[in-house]
Amino acid sequence: MPPPDSPPRPILPGLAVLALLLLLLPPPSLSAGGGGELAYLWPLPAEFTTGADTLSVDPALALVVGGNGGGSRIVKDAFDRYKSIIFQHSGVFSIFNTFRKKASGYDIGRLRIVVRSANEELQLGVDESYTLLVTKSDGKSIIGEATIEANTVYGALRGLETFSQLCTFDYSTKLVLVHKAPWYIRDEPRFAYRGLLLDTSRHYYPIDVIKHILDSMSYAKLNVLHWHIIDEQSFPLEVPTYPKLWQGAYTRWERYTVEDAYEIVNFAKSRGIHVMPEVDVPGHAESWGKGYPELWPSTSCREPLDVSKSTTFDLISGLLSDMRKIFPFELFHLGGDEVNTDCWTSTPHVKQWLQNHNMTSKQAYEYFVLKAQEIAISKNWTPVNWEETFNAFPESLNPRTIVHNWLGAGVCPKAVAKGFKCIFSNQGFWYLDHLDVPWDQVYTAEPLEGISDASKQKLVIGGEVCMWGEITDTSNVQQTIWPRAAAAAERLWSRRDAISSGNINKTALPRLHYFRCLLNGRGVAAAPVTNQYARSQPNGPASCYAQ
Amino acid sequence: MPPPDSPPRPILPGLAVLALLLLLLPPPSLSAGGGGELAYLWPLPAEFTTGADTLSVDPALALVVGGNGGGSRIVKDAFDRYKSIIFQHSGVFSIFNTFRKKASGYDIGRLRIVVRSANEELQLGVDESYTLLVTKSDGKSIIGEATIEANTVYGALRGLETFSQLCTFDYSTKLVLVHKAPWYIRDEPRFAYRGLLLDTSRHYYPIDVIKHILDSMSYAKLNVLHWHIIDEQSFPLEVPTYPKLWQGAYTRWERYTVEDAYEIVNFAKSRGIHVMPEVDVPGHAESWGKGYPELWPSTSCREPLDVSKSTTFDLISGLLSDMRKIFPFELFHLGGDEVNTDCWTSTPHVKQWLQNHNMTSKQAYEYFVLKAQEIAISKNWTPVNWEETFNAFPESLNPRTIVHNWLGAGVCPKAVAKGFKCIFSNQGFWYLDHLDVPWDQVYTAEPLEGISDASKQKLVIGGEVCMWGEITDTSNVQQTIWPRAAAAAERLWSRRDAISSGNINKTALPRLHYFRCLLNGRGVAAAPVTNQYARSQPNGPASCYAQ
Repeated sequence: MPPPDSPPRPILPGLAVLALLLLLLPPPSLSAGGGGELAYLWPLPAEFTTGADTLSVDPALALVVGGNGGGSRIVKDAFDRYKSIIFQHSGVFSIFNTFRKKASGYDIGRLRIVVRSANEELQLGVDESYTLLVTKSDGKSIIGEATIEANTVYGALRGLETFSQLCTFDYSTKLVLVHKAPWYIRDEPRFAYRGLLLDTSRHYYPIDVIKHILDSMSYAKLNVLHWHIIDEQSFPLEVPTYPKLWQGAYTRWERYTVEDAYEIVNFAKSRGIHVMPEVDVPGHAESWGKGYPELWPSTSCREPLDVSKSTTFDLISGLLSDMRKIFPFELFHLGGDEVNTDCWTSTPHVKQWLQNHNMTSKQAYEYFVLKAQEIAISKNWTPVNWEETFNAFPESLNPRTIVHNWLGAGVCPKAVAKGFKCIFSNQGFWYLDHLDVPWDQVYTAEPLEGISDASKQKLVIGGEVCMWGEITDTSNVQQTIWPRAAAAAERLWSRRDAISSGNINKTALPRLHYFRCLLNGRGVAAAPVTNQYARSQPNGPASCYAQ
Repeated sequence: MPPPDSPPRPILPGLAVLALLLLLLPPPSLSAGGGGELAYLWPLPAEFTTGADTLSVDPALALVVGGNGGGSRIVKDAFDRYKSIIFQHSGVFSIFNTFRKKASGYDIGRLRIVVRSANEELQLGVDESYTLLVTKSDGKSIIGEATIEANTVYGALRGLETFSQLCTFDYSTKLVLVHKAPWYIRDEPRFAYRGLLLDTSRHYYPIDVIKHILDSMSYAKLNVLHWHIIDEQSFPLEVPTYPKLWQGAYTRWERYTVEDAYEIVNFAKSRGIHVMPEVDVPGHAESWGKGYPELWPSTSCREPLDVSKSTTFDLISGLLSDMRKIFPFELFHLGGDEVNTDCWTSTPHVKQWLQNHNMTSKQAYEYFVLKAQEIAISKNWTPVNWEETFNAFPESLNPRTIVHNWLGAGVCPKAVAKGFKCIFSNQGFWYLDHLDVPWDQVYTAEPLEGISDASKQKLVIGGEVCMWGEITDTSNVQQTIWPRAAAAAERLWSRRDAISSGNINKTALPRLHYFRCLLNGRGVAAAPVTNQYARSQPNGPASCYAQ
């Protein structure tokens, strides 16, 4: 740990992957040049080169758009958001009349964003690649000063985030500067699915809090909010077809209207974030029976949902039909984890039904999951299920199923070997409520561990950090998510070779310190990076960059 | 603690003080009427009456202004802010086409704000009183539907906050409703000074984080940000006349420009919040010497500031001159606490100076504090000093001094007995970094304890909760401030008789639970109320209203 008054040391990020590019260019100043200035990016782009220029950015930075998709509202709004982030220090008014004289003009007056496609559909695997060029205009150049080129608006969003990370406020000149220009960045994500689970059943999060989390996700280029809306403790979502379901909310004030949910989906879309809702069946569903007690095997034995009644599946179908109108993402999470079937075998009418259908309770669990999958598929959803379903009946699981690993290592290798897609969330590393997992263990957890065949590797669509809500509420959710979620975000975005070699205390930790402080500067309550126990208090007075 | 699924029980707030008013009116429904609806206010207004009507509020609520000050930008901006708070759930668009049909029109379509004075000077003791009337327009009434009347824009701000707390989103009808109307509220603060100390030296807070804290203060009607800018660990503030002072910042990025500070002052003003800066001398000042080592007695003995050099006081004068341009508030905090003078007696040139001037080190401490007071007074500031100055030399302290209590009980009684004004911050109750002080001990701490003479009571200008920064940074500052700062805020705003009798677990706790959840709903990370240890995690899944 550096002494608190020394700035973090510059490092050589991803040098290995850049070797070829660097050979073709004048020697870049990756080490501290121009007064030891830093240019730290998180997550690390796929490829980039830097130079030795320092460029000033005009506080009146103008947006110039091009391409079929450049005129998108999503681009315009994002530009405005990032502009206020980049210039949060730059009031034009100076009370001491000593600053912000820039008689000679700024080096970067315009940001050109070219988006080739006008298609704004946000599907899994949507093209998020971009190139970003930041260079001084010399009058002869036809390239312009700062340019983002992308195939989709979502690539443009990622490029804007990277551009914002290049811009730093210089306290001496009171200018926003880009150090180490010219920059040439070509970037794209390693995985299509880079998720964060949020659990709004154990504790309710107000919609403004969820929006703030979505904003913070976009800073780390995470792109899936896995919304674990409902669980046994509460059912906060409005379901117009079954209006008594949200009687299962904690209180009348801790609910989401369909409009709230729709607003969250659209807010997320404007940040390039998919929202994957979860309806966890047949376990974890006790709260459903508050409004519809007939879903319980009995009032004294309430979970799993009653497998013996067709009305159970009618309700699931109605629920999913309503949700389909809100959630356009192609994936839908059906849970299926931790199902204890004791209530089925101990409740007379269910036990009788099992006998009549010649089913064991384990078979009934399979029956339930497969029936729920059929319902989801009939509504044009791809089902995602927690790994227990795969562990219990891999042969009968619908082949379209995406298996969601959580219990431990080795599940994705088995799932992809059988042709299933897989999401990696090994609880030993990527369960954020496990407060004893430090940043470096999050960082080094590798979704492709144990999978060497390239065609099988492609079936791992990505990974997800899970913010289960038992010990987390509005008061501490951001500090529990960050900075560890950022460690996973780089694992999921950046090139494996670039982030898997060398000493991560030198290649990653200084950048993560820097990114944590960047989050703080944007109002996100990211916790100290190197605490032994996540989200514990800073261990005394110090710089953000040293804790 | 109620079970997590039951709403908090209604109470009879401040009934004692309302007795007379209530006798003159039809019986109000203070108990749960209209479906058990609640109308909880925090802090409790001075006087109010309620009724039994439920009124709907138009999402297109219009602002109508009156009076010499009604046209103020402060009023217009605050109305817009509160409108988006009040209607955060109310998208006009409904994807299920079943909601928000209000063919008959809304009960409340306009909010009339009358501000009598156009004077927007924010001085200590500025009139913050207001009346708020919310009633159904019957066509015959000339009063209008919802009306705030205030003498100043700052009273109007307080009235807007109260109005926003009356408005609740009803999830069944998807309307914003005011229950228990008609409301007649006449309100004013008990104390002119209701402060929160923020320490930006032990940890740096980005300006957006400070702004968010200012917003949250306004929700509890706190009105002074005591900005403890500098301490021994870091000197983050730019001082144009002494440009090397902020070399004492932790890093080049953890600084405030004069423009940043000015922006914070103006942001605070728009919320009716004074900003009182602190320059703590002669102790707690080691960081000053990073840029100007001559301020240290020696490089090996760095605190207190060198009393023997006139340049020390020249620098203080220059510093205060620069700060005077930024901070218009009439109070300026000069610290003066915890001064260990060993460096003076152990450093040869200072020891010699003491001998030459025939001073003990204790006398030199007095000399330093009084000289700093003279400088502040010469710049038209009223000096505030921590209580050690009063404890050490009460007879020579400038009579304009405001004594800031912190060490324990009994100081304000002694200070006001000698004619000094006083601020109450007894560390046993109002130091927020003392995590073992639960909400009820914060709530019952009484600034006028031990002072019975009314003329002496007037010298206690108020109190302040102190958020010292050793174990607090951007990741956890809001959860350490809230909800306990709210307990102090009601103590400082509401009538003593109304909040000092009865069982506070019934008269205050349910409202505080409610206010904590209101803060959460506005994006403020307020912690569970009833944790034994402040800001600890929720003890399991539950409603916000039950933790």
